[in-house]
Amino acid sequence: MPRIPTYDDVAAAAARIAPAAHRTPVLTSRTADEEAGASLFFKCENFQRMGAFKFRGAYNALSCFDSGQRKAGVVAFSSGNHAQAVALSARLLGMPATIVMPHDAPAAKVAATRGYGGTVVVYDRYKEDREAIGRRLAEEGGLTLIPPFDHPDVIAGQGTAAKELIEEAGPLDALFVCLGGGGLLSGSALAARALAPGCKVYGVEPEAGNDGQQAFRAGHLVHIEVPKTIADGAQTQSLGKITFEIIRRDVDDVFTASDAELVEAMRFFATRMKMIVEPTGCLGFAAARRMKNELKGQRVGVLISGGNVDLARFAALVAG
Amino acid sequence: MPRIPTYDDVAAAAARIAPAAHRTPVLTSRTADEEAGASLFFKCENFQRMGAFKFRGAYNALSCFDSGQRKAGVVAFSSGNHAQAVALSARLLGMPATIVMPHDAPAAKVAATRGYGGTVVVYDRYKEDREAIGRRLAEEGGLTLIPPFDHPDVIAGQGTAAKELIEEAGPLDALFVCLGGGGLLSGSALAARALAPGCKVYGVEPEAGNDGQQAFRAGHLVHIEVPKTIADGAQTQSLGKITFEIIRRDVDDVFTASDAELVEAMRFFATRMKMIVEPTGCLGFAAARRMKNELKGQRVGVLISGGNVDLARFAALVAG
Repeated sequence: MPRIPTYDDVAAAAARIAPAAHRTPVLTSRTADEEAGASLFFKCENFQRMGAFKFRGAYNALSCFDSGQRKAGVVAFSSGNHAQAVALSARLLGMPATIVMPHDAPAAKVAATRGYGGTVVVYDRYKEDREAIGRRLAEEGGLTLIPPFDHPDVIAGQGTAAKELIEEAGPLDALFVCLGGGGLLSGSALAARALAPGCKVYGVEPEAGNDGQQAFRAGHLVHIEVPKTIADGAQTQSLGKITFEIIRRDVDDVFTASDAELVEAMRFFATRMKMIVEPTGCLGFAAARRMKNELKGQRVGVLISGGNVDLARFAALVAG
Repeated sequence: MPRIPTYDDVAAAAARIAPAAHRTPVLTSRTADEEAGASLFFKCENFQRMGAFKFRGAYNALSCFDSGQRKAGVVAFSSGNHAQAVALSARLLGMPATIVMPHDAPAAKVAATRGYGGTVVVYDRYKEDREAIGRRLAEEGGLTLIPPFDHPDVIAGQGTAAKELIEEAGPLDALFVCLGGGGLLSGSALAARALAPGCKVYGVEPEAGNDGQQAFRAGHLVHIEVPKTIADGAQTQSLGKITFEIIRRDVDDVFTASDAELVEAMRFFATRMKMIVEPTGCLGFAAARRMKNELKGQRVGVLISGGNVDLARFAALVAG
């Protein structure tokens, strides 16, 4: 079993990432408060560098490399925010980065990853196994593989967002966190248990793929097919070994939100709070809105994970 | 000549509005900095209550009412952000508000104003004079007329945004402010002169309607036809008497930006900074981008005035 990170790791990560990461704002909305009958505090990681919380975990993990690891560089496989987070972190820390992406990844994401100085290795997602490719690159070139969520330094880095939220908003009664592989949720749970012991911590995943909810309720990991949902950052097939251990111990429940609820939340963020949130980033708020009877009078934190959605797609979703 | 407000009025306004207004975040973007070769600080009034800085001036002006004025209430004529700012401020301060709007004002804006509890009086903009209607309501009912910009308490309130920006970002070399009637620009100039004496203060208005630039250069007010521009918050025909006095004294220059430049800036805000800015709110950044040779190495403040743009229109502009 790999090492399970603790709140001390989150605090150490906070110090490590402080010179590079944005301390993102915590925004409030009277309209959201009136609608919920509660006080909502939105931690806006859509305003984080490269547009998502993923920068925190990647930068923290790469900062922990020893000199040999730095020289050889990092390898990651991802077609999403983790790819850009690793590429940008590597550039800032002066080390080479290799990102393994599927051949049909959106051109904009490949370009963004290259723009951050990453070397992109393309594979055929129908014929090749990306993990095998990543492992081979790691073994042959001595590169260090950084997975998107199931790594103690990644989890500790992601936990810094909830740490900042609680420090700024004060004690919370509940905290809603988007759930894909569980990096953000497990890190947030570590922070909340230490800083706001009475706070309920909830994960929220797409209705189309509730592997996390099933695992949480069954008490063991559950593996599903790739779910069909607009929440492309949460199309994971299973929690990780480490993230699951923390989630089963420190999280209070796991809920789901439908694509229609995500679109409604995106529209709310755009019209009332003037910000662009990617579908995955709407998971927490979508569930909190549905649970308003349970949250009456409470102080509720909502983690917005990111804002990386293609403008044309955003327009089609919210104005369509 | 009416009273010309001073920085002391801005400081007093800041204390008055503090319990009600958002202290909006100051965001930065490495991409914007790299592009400009300067350090840019964006004061995000699109995250202000009702979505624009106008709330500051309206709430300050209404807070200065005596008990007789409060009882009779306020009247304003506006089809835009000022209408909603006055309606919301009146509700918060427990006084009646009457808003005079053209019969063809967008249904959403009429609904939003009514939603804040304002009584909407509709007039035919081709046959009736809204100022005459406002004055008649003021005289007959003892209502106090609060104009959208040319009023010392409104100007002082608007100046609190630049005050907060400079307090948070530290000393600035230049400050770019959207310019319509001049309420935000003149208030910002009062704050900058007091808090950052070396800071150049620039107004930026739509290329299609440069009444402010003409007035600034000619040394007297210039009246123009309603300009055709997407910057609907800056379709003013002339500066005000008070705003012009402050602008001619405390502002360093007035520039213009084309509609195409505004769309480019909107797209940048949406894709790189994940926020929705209305066309008028892009004026400052559009001019700063064009002047990057002059701004090299400087610390530059950019005031984003608001984010109230219909989602379908936003989508058509940025994703079109």
